[in-house]
Amino acid sequence: MNSSKPYIIRALHEWISDNDCTPLVLVSSEFPEVQIPAGIAKDGKVVLNISFGATQNLELVNEGILFDARFSGVSQNLFVPMDSILAIYARENGQGMMFGDNDEFPEPPKSTDKEKSSTEKSAKKTTDIKKADKKSFLKVVK
Amino acid sequence: MNSSKPYIIRALHEWISDNDCTPLVLVSSEFPEVQIPAGIAKDGKVVLNISFGATQNLELVNEGILFDARFSGVSQNLFVPMDSILAIYARENGQGMMFGDNDEFPEPPKSTDKEKSSTEKSAKKTTDIKKADKKSFLKVVK
Repeated sequence: MNSSKPYIIRALHEWISDNDCTPLVLVSSEFPEVQIPAGIAKDGKVVLNISFGATQNLELVNEGILFDARFSGVSQNLFVPMDSILAIYARENGQGMMFGDNDEFPEPPKSTDKEKSSTEKSAKKTTDIKKADKKSFLKVVK
Repeated sequence: MNSSKPYIIRALHEWISDNDCTPLVLVSSEFPEVQIPAGIAKDGKVVLNISFGATQNLELVNEGILFDARFSGVSQNLFVPMDSILAIYARENGQGMMFGDNDEFPEPPKSTDKEKSSTEKSAKKTTDIKKADKKSFLKVVK
C-alpha cells in the first residue's frame, strides 16, 4: 500500500480549516527537494501557513504540498515533499498530528520569523501534540 | 473544535480503497443509535464491509456512516454513529487505525459470520493495529 500520510494530512487540513483555524505545517527544510524562499528556515525547520487565505493554488497531492505565497511582498512558488512534513497543526490551539521520522523524534514546532508571534502563542499548547513513536506512530488530539 | 475522527475515517477509507483493498469497520454494536440487521453482531461487536462494491448509497458524514447493504439477499439500511466505530482497517492486510474509547481499550477485530473467512485471514495481521491509548491515541500502520 502507498503511504497513508498524504491522506491524513489532507484530512487534518480540512478539519482545521472547517474549524476556522489556521493550518500550519512544520517542515524539515533540509530535506531534498524542499523548495522554499531562502532565509525563512531556522535550525533546519520552517513553519508554513497553508491556509487558503495565506496561499494561492494550494495543492495537497500525494507527493507533497505545493502553493504560492507572498514573502516580503513577492509571490513565491513553494513545494514541500510529503517526507519533509513533520507535523500539521492549528495555529490557534496546537491541535493536530506529528509524524515521526525513521530514527529520531521530531521536536515541537519552533518559531520562524514569519510565524513567530503565532507559534509563540501556540507553543504553549503544542504539548498537545505528542511525540511520534517511530515511523508510524501518530497522535490525534481531539 | 469538532472531532477529527470523521475526517480521519474518510481519509483512511479513501486510502484503503485507492489501494484496491476492502475497508472494514469494527463497530461497537451496543452503542446507542447503531442500526444494523439483527443477529450479525457477536459479543457486542460487528465488522462491516464499507467498500463501494459491498454497499450502496454509502455516506461517511460527521455523524456516522450510513449505507445500504444486502444481508441474506435482502437490502438493509444501516447506520453506525461515529462514536461506535472502534477501528477502520483493510481486510487484506489489517492496516488501518484503531480508536480508543473513554475507559477501555478496544479489542482486536473479531470475526462475525459475515466476515468470518476474511477476518480470520486478517486476524493474524491485525496485531499491526496497536491498541489505542485513551480517547485520542491513534496508530497508523503504513
